[in-house]
Amino acid sequence: MFQVQILGTSAAIPTNSRLPSAQVVTINDRHHLVDCGEGTQMQLIKHRVKFARLDVIFISHLHGDHILGLPGLLNSLSLYERNFPLKLYAPSGLKQILDLVFAQTHSYLNYELEFIPMEDFAVGDIIYDTERYRVRCLPLEHRIFCRGFKFEEVNKRPKFDFYKAKALEIPNNYFNLLKQGNIITLENGRTVHPEEVLLPPDNPLSFAYCSDTSYHEELIEHIKHTKLLYHEATFLHNMKDRAEATCHSTALQAGKIARSAEVRQLLLGHFSARYKNLQPILDEARSVFPNTMLAKEGYVFNLKDLG
Amino acid sequence: MFQVQILGTSAAIPTNSRLPSAQVVTINDRHHLVDCGEGTQMQLIKHRVKFARLDVIFISHLHGDHILGLPGLLNSLSLYERNFPLKLYAPSGLKQILDLVFAQTHSYLNYELEFIPMEDFAVGDIIYDTERYRVRCLPLEHRIFCRGFKFEEVNKRPKFDFYKAKALEIPNNYFNLLKQGNIITLENGRTVHPEEVLLPPDNPLSFAYCSDTSYHEELIEHIKHTKLLYHEATFLHNMKDRAEATCHSTALQAGKIARSAEVRQLLLGHFSARYKNLQPILDEARSVFPNTMLAKEGYVFNLKDLG
Repeated sequence: MFQVQILGTSAAIPTNSRLPSAQVVTINDRHHLVDCGEGTQMQLIKHRVKFARLDVIFISHLHGDHILGLPGLLNSLSLYERNFPLKLYAPSGLKQILDLVFAQTHSYLNYELEFIPMEDFAVGDIIYDTERYRVRCLPLEHRIFCRGFKFEEVNKRPKFDFYKAKALEIPNNYFNLLKQGNIITLENGRTVHPEEVLLPPDNPLSFAYCSDTSYHEELIEHIKHTKLLYHEATFLHNMKDRAEATCHSTALQAGKIARSAEVRQLLLGHFSARYKNLQPILDEARSVFPNTMLAKEGYVFNLKDLG
Repeated sequence: MFQVQILGTSAAIPTNSRLPSAQVVTINDRHHLVDCGEGTQMQLIKHRVKFARLDVIFISHLHGDHILGLPGLLNSLSLYERNFPLKLYAPSGLKQILDLVFAQTHSYLNYELEFIPMEDFAVGDIIYDTERYRVRCLPLEHRIFCRGFKFEEVNKRPKFDFYKAKALEIPNNYFNLLKQGNIITLENGRTVHPEEVLLPPDNPLSFAYCSDTSYHEELIEHIKHTKLLYHEATFLHNMKDRAEATCHSTALQAGKIARSAEVRQLLLGHFSARYKNLQPILDEARSVFPNTMLAKEGYVFNLKDLG
């Protein structure tokens, strides 16, 4: 399982249908929250994400629309009686905010919050590593220190060819041994090598989260061939100057980044409140990169579909 | 006009249908926000409150579920290009939170935020005063410093008796002079005294906001004969011990306060997330105070209906 659920797609000002940035990246039943705008805990409840089991939180930068849901979420996790550690990757200033808010609101977390300052990493570094996937940080160019995140599968296991195994009349109770790479000897004395029933693994899946950033070509090499790229598209290209001044991107620029990076699919978000109808934003990005979608609150993108 | 719109009714943990505390008290087109839990700005947008014109914010206490919507709301008001002052009444610690959050998130308000620390007032003091209504602070008993707020009409004008004026054959262009208390002389030489066409004013309307508090009899004298009393009812009375330990009230206790204070109507809120069905809470309060209602997100209570 490798999926991305969108919780918020608004830029700084929320609208009646769009909420501040937050996404849940779920890989093999492990939940990772990426950014945490105001209202994220309500969105998690609404969309039935089992967030009591949240493993890691990644925060891209310290603008309010990416962090203001965090004190409430962390406090609720405590009220839900979470009793195991939570990792939080974020720019170091967030620690000061949380410490002061918890002190002034008399809130005490009954679990360990392990704070990892993003300033400790160089762009491209692996910041979180597991046996099956890892997370790297990406260079974004914004008004303040800002990092993207790339989730990528590693060590994908070969696929078991069930039909081949059946054709070779191998009893089911040997399947797991073969999957694990063992050579087996059947009761009739025949030897089976795992290569006979294993297929090459699927291509590794990957997801890159890039919000907020101006058009930033340095990013391209870091997200080359990513399966799903979430890239901000705050403005239409007729507001290119405003985008540049505020260190945001236009939909056209997001499309160009996707095309240059040869990603499989582009997902747009972080829309300015001025756009009630998002179709022109989608059309503009598709003019340079056809396989583009709009992010929307509640939508789930299954990376396996992009395999 | 005197109305109360409910934006949030949850206790510390929000649910799928209940959000953290916030209410808008509107008197003669002036909007007052009372408490500002996470998501308040989205609720204001959803319920089409013209919050760009917000006049004053009152914060009862510094628990997260009453304040965490404030940084986002204040920042959005700035992005909406508000350019006139906003008064904020709150416990003094909130100033530190806001200063640090704005500094760390690089947010700068382009309007004056006039912070008035609630510690400066004694209970019962008038903290906000206008020609037509005023706001007093109320004693609540909670784990941390906490104040309620009572909005009350003053200087209500006599009502103009339109039918009487017509019966006396007074031309319409004299009506305003009479409303303002002037003695007039008609063209036929007849003198009319304002008392002839003025009726006594309606009873002054009043609303008291009491969240969060344990059962607190000191409150009663301060809210005597209030038209609408919002009182927290976090628990059912079978959890009286838990209510006492956490400085909250049961529905029965809220009903008793309403009965002792001889208010016109009781409105319950601040419900624990453990109660999916609120009917038992309503029934319990009604057993001692029949004229009781449940607060619900989006509901508007028109005080004129209680006149």
